[in-house]
Amino acid sequence: MRKSVVCFLCGWLVLPSAFPADSGPLAGYSETSARAERDWEAKFRAIPDTANLRAYMQRLSARPHHVGSPYDADNAEWLLGKLKEWGLDAHIETFDVLFPTPKERALEMIAPSRFTARLAEPTEAVDPTSGQHDEQLPSYNAYSIDGDVTAPLVYVNFGIPEDYETLDRLGISVKGAIVVARYGGSWRGIKPKVAAEHGAVGCLIYSDPHEDGYFAGDVFPAGGLRNRDGVQRGSVMDMPVYPGDPLTPGVGATKDAKRLPIDQAVTLTKIPVMPISYGDAQPLLAAMTGPVAPPAWRGALPITYHLGPGAMKVHFKLASTWGLKTLHDVIARIPGSSEPDEWIIRGNHHDAWVNGADDPVSGAVALLEEARALGMLLKQGWKPRRTIVYCLWDGEEPGLLGSTEWAETHADELRRTAAVYINSDSNGRGYLQMSGSHTLEHFINGVAREIPDPESKVSVWQRQQFRRIANPMPGQTPQERQELRSRPDLRIGALGSGSDYTAFLDHLGIASIDLGFGGEDASGIYHSAYDDFYWYTHFSDTTFVYGRALAQTAGTAVIRLADAELLPYDFDDFTDTVRRYVQEVEQLAREKRDQIIERNRQIDEGLFAAINDPRHPMGEPAKEPVPPFLNFAPLENGLAALDRTAQLYKQALVQANANGGSALARALLRDANARLIAVERALTLSDGLPNRPWFQHQIYAPGFYTGYGVKTLPGVREALEQKQWPLAEEQIARVGKVLENAGEAIQGAASALGQAVK
Amino acid sequence: MRKSVVCFLCGWLVLPSAFPADSGPLAGYSETSARAERDWEAKFRAIPDTANLRAYMQRLSARPHHVGSPYDADNAEWLLGKLKEWGLDAHIETFDVLFPTPKERALEMIAPSRFTARLAEPTEAVDPTSGQHDEQLPSYNAYSIDGDVTAPLVYVNFGIPEDYETLDRLGISVKGAIVVARYGGSWRGIKPKVAAEHGAVGCLIYSDPHEDGYFAGDVFPAGGLRNRDGVQRGSVMDMPVYPGDPLTPGVGATKDAKRLPIDQAVTLTKIPVMPISYGDAQPLLAAMTGPVAPPAWRGALPITYHLGPGAMKVHFKLASTWGLKTLHDVIARIPGSSEPDEWIIRGNHHDAWVNGADDPVSGAVALLEEARALGMLLKQGWKPRRTIVYCLWDGEEPGLLGSTEWAETHADELRRTAAVYINSDSNGRGYLQMSGSHTLEHFINGVAREIPDPESKVSVWQRQQFRRIANPMPGQTPQERQELRSRPDLRIGALGSGSDYTAFLDHLGIASIDLGFGGEDASGIYHSAYDDFYWYTHFSDTTFVYGRALAQTAGTAVIRLADAELLPYDFDDFTDTVRRYVQEVEQLAREKRDQIIERNRQIDEGLFAAINDPRHPMGEPAKEPVPPFLNFAPLENGLAALDRTAQLYKQALVQANANGGSALARALLRDANARLIAVERALTLSDGLPNRPWFQHQIYAPGFYTGYGVKTLPGVREALEQKQWPLAEEQIARVGKVLENAGEAIQGAASALGQAVK
Repeated sequence: MRKSVVCFLCGWLVLPSAFPADSGPLAGYSETSARAERDWEAKFRAIPDTANLRAYMQRLSARPHHVGSPYDADNAEWLLGKLKEWGLDAHIETFDVLFPTPKERALEMIAPSRFTARLAEPTEAVDPTSGQHDEQLPSYNAYSIDGDVTAPLVYVNFGIPEDYETLDRLGISVKGAIVVARYGGSWRGIKPKVAAEHGAVGCLIYSDPHEDGYFAGDVFPAGGLRNRDGVQRGSVMDMPVYPGDPLTPGVGATKDAKRLPIDQAVTLTKIPVMPISYGDAQPLLAAMTGPVAPPAWRGALPITYHLGPGAMKVHFKLASTWGLKTLHDVIARIPGSSEPDEWIIRGNHHDAWVNGADDPVSGAVALLEEARALGMLLKQGWKPRRTIVYCLWDGEEPGLLGSTEWAETHADELRRTAAVYINSDSNGRGYLQMSGSHTLEHFINGVAREIPDPESKVSVWQRQQFRRIANPMPGQTPQERQELRSRPDLRIGALGSGSDYTAFLDHLGIASIDLGFGGEDASGIYHSAYDDFYWYTHFSDTTFVYGRALAQTAGTAVIRLADAELLPYDFDDFTDTVRRYVQEVEQLAREKRDQIIERNRQIDEGLFAAINDPRHPMGEPAKEPVPPFLNFAPLENGLAALDRTAQLYKQALVQANANGGSALARALLRDANARLIAVERALTLSDGLPNRPWFQHQIYAPGFYTGYGVKTLPGVREALEQKQWPLAEEQIARVGKVLENAGEAIQGAASALGQAVK
Repeated sequence: MRKSVVCFLCGWLVLPSAFPADSGPLAGYSETSARAERDWEAKFRAIPDTANLRAYMQRLSARPHHVGSPYDADNAEWLLGKLKEWGLDAHIETFDVLFPTPKERALEMIAPSRFTARLAEPTEAVDPTSGQHDEQLPSYNAYSIDGDVTAPLVYVNFGIPEDYETLDRLGISVKGAIVVARYGGSWRGIKPKVAAEHGAVGCLIYSDPHEDGYFAGDVFPAGGLRNRDGVQRGSVMDMPVYPGDPLTPGVGATKDAKRLPIDQAVTLTKIPVMPISYGDAQPLLAAMTGPVAPPAWRGALPITYHLGPGAMKVHFKLASTWGLKTLHDVIARIPGSSEPDEWIIRGNHHDAWVNGADDPVSGAVALLEEARALGMLLKQGWKPRRTIVYCLWDGEEPGLLGSTEWAETHADELRRTAAVYINSDSNGRGYLQMSGSHTLEHFINGVAREIPDPESKVSVWQRQQFRRIANPMPGQTPQERQELRSRPDLRIGALGSGSDYTAFLDHLGIASIDLGFGGEDASGIYHSAYDDFYWYTHFSDTTFVYGRALAQTAGTAVIRLADAELLPYDFDDFTDTVRRYVQEVEQLAREKRDQIIERNRQIDEGLFAAINDPRHPMGEPAKEPVPPFLNFAPLENGLAALDRTAQLYKQALVQANANGGSALARALLRDANARLIAVERALTLSDGLPNRPWFQHQIYAPGFYTGYGVKTLPGVREALEQKQWPLAEEQIARVGKVLENAGEAIQGAASALGQAVK
């Protein structure tokens, strides 16, 4: 009887219930299947055990395990063994990638006085793994070119493009100089890239204690913050152009792959670059002369920050061993019982810069515990409809190598099958951070409502909502404050880059989610030798309750996606979000225009000359042509198409709900699901973004000049930011068309769903 | 012929001309007299000589000259001699005031380790006067009570009321503790006052290098900023209750004045307090334990800032010699030729904490050069209509003693005669800062338009306007930006306290203006032994061109006010400004209400419990009763009265203009001027502000909890800030009535002017 199956698919149509939401409708499920699903999910969430998480972490972080190290391969084998032990079909997939490791590093001041940088992280007696120097990678930035330079030093703040505009106005050039930038303000790889664009011959990056040291809290080992010798390693590959192996752009780095010669790999840096501690940076910065740095550029060292250049000279030498190393991706597969060709993929990397208890092991152990729990469910008779793929990536740290090469190798299959990719990385105490495709915003909100927060006992969703209410963003309007309470779903962040979702979302157009807890503990061991088991169990999620919460959250999402009769994408939140992006770029265009008009006027009035302080001269900016008004109609039309088709899809859902799920024809439902999966693909263009074809998604991309930080509607936004007006107009048309394509895809899904209901 | 005298008084009615504005109409002058006036003003402005300013400074700052010191009296005699030499009728007026000087100061950490504070500013070899230790006052806070306390230390940030709310939420009490506060965030005297209110037994105030040290720039003697041993002396008298001699509130401290016993002087501190250098503060702060201070509380010392209290104990001892000292105010008078009973008063103090080249000598030498120039004009036949009084105050530093006692002594005469008081204090390179009574906003803008800026050659008015356009205030609206260019007058600041205008404006209701240049050089010698001739001639207005500009500005204002046929008060800008204040307090009431409602809601929802971090616990705030809606009609009605009568006055001016000035009857004009002078008096109430009757002005006052920082409509605003709703409503009615009184006074002036014109 149809009456008995009311409320199929109606999770979209009711307001969210308060926690605990362990009953009631479930989006994508009929009433009967929702009940069964909730049972499986509840069983699943009871399994993850903090003692296991702790034990896994102790094992995985016991020794340094960077790409190419013995313990990296050893960990992969151990992971494989565990997955198999739990009954999963697992294997290791290898790739051979370019990975340089340093053989020579030197930094010294040679004038006006002499100082030689230590470039080493000493053993801390209380920390048992901090002394494994034989196995540790020294502090360096991977994919820096080799070099040997002697030059004056210029302090460039964060080293982002605006900082060079300020230096210009102050009459300071970095041409022929070594720049010293502090970490922060952008992803590190941007700093040497912009420095090289401005003619610098070398780049040092240091951790200022203001962002990452005693200013933020007590330093290791008394506290969790970075001490004077701690160094942030990290990749400086030009990932905004393409991530993964520099020698095999766009294709998997398999044994026989065609490889570029190293000198054609455009993602290597143009100048040598090295990270240093604030202990090593302080004598250099203290000896600098030249103008005093602007207030916002000053850090927390007990010195007056000067910009240089002066009589000071620095010698900096760097040489690496360049060669191929083997990656070990560990992949486990649970075949779908009825829809084996629709994949739900879950990943976290296992490689680290050194011991990596926090990054990535804290996330990897949650994933591992999920896998164990899924194994147990399978033994109890659980049969996921879709195929589930669990992945422990290698080589994330140097450049998202393992995930990118795997995604590129399996690109065709993934484009055909992959429904959702769920990522995690480091994990800590605090609040659930949700970012990803806004077609999944409603879905992941539903999951978050069911996970109890370990500290407060309200749901992790509720705690995040409370936090946003309690800590308003600067400049929050009354409407935004109101929305925090009234909008059924919490807004999720958009994804830039910095972890393994990148190839899935940006290159292949697979709807993706990134999950992790954090925000309660200041951490200062990122990419240092002190990111280890001692640190994690003293200063982070010491009882692993947030590790368990991550396993519960991500695992629930995986199961719910794998079991759903209809994939729970949602196009209302998506359209609502795209509308905001469109409004933002329209406003950006207006502001750019207004700013240029205003500045030109100020130049004409003689303002800059009149307020110049002869003792601290600032040059007058150059006049710029006033930007034209741009035609935003294509974006508006694309948005209208989204709006219209999202409505159609909702109507189809309502109809499905009214008719009851049991009437749905399996084959037609399969068609509807296939068309739903295709929506995210429709947001890509195969020739990608301007000057970086690897990045195909037209809604989200890491910024060309931010590195990790996202740019939404990137083609349009970056053209505007870079004042390339004709390009901006071109991109508006392209992206408008993409939105129309997505609208067509949504309409296709709505029709298919309508067909299935008939 | 009437036609020949068009444009009398029409300076109000034309838009400001661009610089140079040395011709055209002049507010308060007929066309003929304007021409003569401009000639005298031009002659005047040609006189001030930078070489003289330099020589005066070298003489006045050659030795320490605090209240009661030999060189203080010596300077007064020298000033007197100069004024007489230039032909002015000058004398010294003395008062006997309570002024404590320290005989014992000790500060040491006794647990967990030992450290004894240095409490001394060493000689700097390059600086010839820094070694005059025999004559220097040691670093201390005047009017701290004596004490000898041993207690734990708690860091209270700036030590303002909000900081204690934060400490409360963090579960930290200062009861029985010594607090250590950094300078900044309020006037220093607020820190021990609020600490005592919260039960602290002692208070240390240190100069954090973030606000006042190497963070801001190179330190002395390499640069102008405070070095590790520099200490900011200063008064901690509770001046927001009443300034001046603590023993003679409200009356002049003449030889025979009735004096309070010291123990009844409420403006002494309740707990001992002492200023220290960051060199002395660092070992104490570094040894503290307890929670890490909130991010906004952290300074620029290379430590993690902790709040305490912990095992640490500090011993702090202070004992002063308490006794009367003699002040020497130097007063010169130029009698008015036709209106001897209308006074224009100009003042700057001459006493310093130590050598005081910047504070106050840089301002005093400008005043002195003005006096010399006026003496020259008199010899050339200039005859000011009104009486001009030039004052060099003693005892400003300890508590505005010299100006307050003089104003209290001559209160009756001043209330009858004083039209305007023009103040200055320290002076440096940069922008003209104008603050004061908004009845003079239009006038002082007119003066500023005629003074060339020494560096840019545009007018100092234009340069200030450009600066405001170039550096928008945070959160500036497009309307405010637009106003910066379109409003004929630059808005001037309202006066709080911190210099000698206080008794004139706040106690007697005399329209006042404070002038000074600054903003281009960061300075770190405030109230230290390094504020001396060496410092000033290396790091401030080294060529004295801004000293000359100050003399030109203030002197032009004095002459123009003294010579005007009709006093150039303006009630349009004044009404415009009061309207903003009324809107502000209305918005403050709304915001307070909204905030309390929102916070109560958050408490009810369990938000604070849910977002509590068990490792860094924050207590839940207490629920508060929702404030009632208040009746703001009296303020609105008062504002309407201002609006209406300002219009009437403007019409009377137009009529006067149409009729021509020559038709004005001298006696009736005198009546109009007297009524104009009375308008500022009408803004006072003889019983003053709640709990501080000495402060009679109802539009401006220093904040009870800010000290120097102004509170406009203080009775209303502070009642709202302190959540005293019935008091707020009472004050709204009182201040509304005051605005109506002022409206009546303006109407009286309008009628008198109308009579004069007939």
